[in-house]
Amino acid sequence: MSNLDSLKAQFNEYKSRGLTLNMERGQPADSNFDLSLPILSAVNETNYITDSGVDIRNYPGGVLGLIEARELFCEQLNVSADEIMLGNNSSLELMSRFLTWALLNGVKNSTSGWVNQSPRLIVTVPGYDRHFLLAQSLGFELVSVNMTPNGPDMDAVEALAKDDASIKGIYFVPTYSNPTGDTLSEDFARRLVNLDTAADDFTIFADDAYSVHHLEDNPQPAPDLLAIARETGQEDRVILFGSTSKVTFASGGIGLAGMSTANIAYWSKAMSAQTIGPNKAEQWRHVLFLRNYPGGIKGLMKAHAAILKPKFDVVQEVLNRELGNLDLATWTQPMGGYFVSLDTKKPVANRVVELAKEAGLALTPTGATFPDGIDPGNSNIRLAPTRPPLEEIEPAMEIVACCIKLASAEADVDGA
Amino acid sequence: MSNLDSLKAQFNEYKSRGLTLNMERGQPADSNFDLSLPILSAVNETNYITDSGVDIRNYPGGVLGLIEARELFCEQLNVSADEIMLGNNSSLELMSRFLTWALLNGVKNSTSGWVNQSPRLIVTVPGYDRHFLLAQSLGFELVSVNMTPNGPDMDAVEALAKDDASIKGIYFVPTYSNPTGDTLSEDFARRLVNLDTAADDFTIFADDAYSVHHLEDNPQPAPDLLAIARETGQEDRVILFGSTSKVTFASGGIGLAGMSTANIAYWSKAMSAQTIGPNKAEQWRHVLFLRNYPGGIKGLMKAHAAILKPKFDVVQEVLNRELGNLDLATWTQPMGGYFVSLDTKKPVANRVVELAKEAGLALTPTGATFPDGIDPGNSNIRLAPTRPPLEEIEPAMEIVACCIKLASAEADVDGA
Repeated sequence: MSNLDSLKAQFNEYKSRGLTLNMERGQPADSNFDLSLPILSAVNETNYITDSGVDIRNYPGGVLGLIEARELFCEQLNVSADEIMLGNNSSLELMSRFLTWALLNGVKNSTSGWVNQSPRLIVTVPGYDRHFLLAQSLGFELVSVNMTPNGPDMDAVEALAKDDASIKGIYFVPTYSNPTGDTLSEDFARRLVNLDTAADDFTIFADDAYSVHHLEDNPQPAPDLLAIARETGQEDRVILFGSTSKVTFASGGIGLAGMSTANIAYWSKAMSAQTIGPNKAEQWRHVLFLRNYPGGIKGLMKAHAAILKPKFDVVQEVLNRELGNLDLATWTQPMGGYFVSLDTKKPVANRVVELAKEAGLALTPTGATFPDGIDPGNSNIRLAPTRPPLEEIEPAMEIVACCIKLASAEADVDGA
Repeated sequence: MSNLDSLKAQFNEYKSRGLTLNMERGQPADSNFDLSLPILSAVNETNYITDSGVDIRNYPGGVLGLIEARELFCEQLNVSADEIMLGNNSSLELMSRFLTWALLNGVKNSTSGWVNQSPRLIVTVPGYDRHFLLAQSLGFELVSVNMTPNGPDMDAVEALAKDDASIKGIYFVPTYSNPTGDTLSEDFARRLVNLDTAADDFTIFADDAYSVHHLEDNPQPAPDLLAIARETGQEDRVILFGSTSKVTFASGGIGLAGMSTANIAYWSKAMSAQTIGPNKAEQWRHVLFLRNYPGGIKGLMKAHAAILKPKFDVVQEVLNRELGNLDLATWTQPMGGYFVSLDTKKPVANRVVELAKEAGLALTPTGATFPDGIDPGNSNIRLAPTRPPLEEIEPAMEIVACCIKLASAEADVDGA
């Protein structure tokens, strides 16, 4: 039996099991959500007045959010309480508000809105499909640069930003990037905030979605973008985003935006025309729950890591065991976040995802990690091991490995 | 003692009481909020899966909102469950999303975004300051028409919309208008939806904030704008907004947008790029609470009316008693909503608000009911009797009446 035939036989054996496995989206598992169940009853008929005397049932409370919630969540974005603005239930919602306002009216350093300046945003690839969709749907043109182990390819970013005033900013994930798990190095952070830009209002939209989502016990500190920017007076360039979606409940909590106090003043005014302020009941629920959680947000994130780390370990274990010596793929080994990024050596990512589906495993559609859904190398596969129960990760990853072997062997035959 | 001196003496007597009264904003009273206290604990560790099997703790659930919540709230906007989209905690937030998207990408019938078409919106005066602020901050120019007892002055609306393609829509309150309490008549509703407009994508943004906020036991049915529009195939022109802010908690609930199913398809796509969908925990809380409330939303609104109606009655009683025979002011007698609108005969509204403040009563700043904060007649005063306890309405209204008498007498002297 040829290698191809033997791989086909192995594949058919997996297929015959009739499995239904899913590693498509970066969602927490039910056991992660269970950790936060007490939040549902944290606020009741007796405790709806905040420490500072705000009645969460009435309008007043401010466009920035409750002070108690700002004091709690500023740590998540590595800023102070006067450098954070809260939003409703997702960072996406906040990011869309910031991007739309920038298009219509500009950012703090703008003289006008961006909409008539053929605005372009730098994005990193592989990257996050919802960033691409949001920015493109609003009218931004995207320019891709590679994500490297130290963050966005800064040579490329510098070259793009320097001469072209239509390059209005960069939109990326600084910590445990989606999907590579790469984290911005201090050197790259310094180059980023001090970029020589043709646009006076170049803005760093940093979606710090995984800022506290460590898998290791002693995580490397995340780069403090705002502090680094402040050293050279560039702090108004930086806007950080985050949310509680993978802290408490997914799209059932609070969005966060961190920025300089000058930006807080600018964006408060912008927001106060558009909203009455975010839902205070949800903020107060989070404050009461997280204050009482042993170790606070950090303690809760350790409990999440205890559930997630074994899943990521199985991903590495199977990939090493099945593909370690074959030169068919490379993959990342994230210290946090929600994904592992795998690149096939041959241009077979499409075929791998197709085969996996046939064998009962849903993977993120190929191309999702690139603008317009097109991976020019047809090589990137985003693995999302967080949602399935631990016992499903090994069979799922064995299918992934088998499909990579089979698709690569098919490519050899096609190319022969 | 002259009339002026005697009024001054009366005014000084009020002033000497050192009162602190507030009829500035349209907020529910604490007793209104108390009706909804059980909502805080409606969802707990045992009931976080919806009837249709959605786990409110995870992302999936859709950009339109939970089906159970859509089935519940569609009645509030007089639409069906497939004609409603839910938002986060306020209608303002939803309205700002719709207006920004219209500017960047247009509405369903647009060929392009409105931003480069010098877009103008018709608004009604006296009207709602947050409408003016929102639309102007996004870049709309406002064109005012008078609110009449039958709704927006349709002669003026027809004249404006007919020849000018930059008139992109009308933004108003169809039921118990803020601040007049006027409700759109069926005749005016018919003229509105069938407007002959220069713009192909003219849109009726109807903020139906008080659609179920009746003060009387047997309210006149509100105009069914969408149904009337459907008779002539104009249903895609109409977008209705509402919220639970004065049903459960203010800016602590759910925003609502009602529209044709074709518009639902268009706006779902627009929203799905910008949000992950509104907070499901808050929706599910509302469903469980309101389903169990005796009589549902209607029953709860009757309980609200029982608290609010006596306050509105005192407003009318004092105004009739103090000003009924004096020809110094006219005022509305709303059958629902949150305000009474008063117009002084002489241009003294500014002075009345100033005097009232001196006597310890905060009123809505003059001009707030007009774009740019300028009331050309200096006559309109918005009275908001909902928030203070019932016993404060009589002294507050006596101060209002006294200040109107005094300011009018001062004007007579100035004019003499």
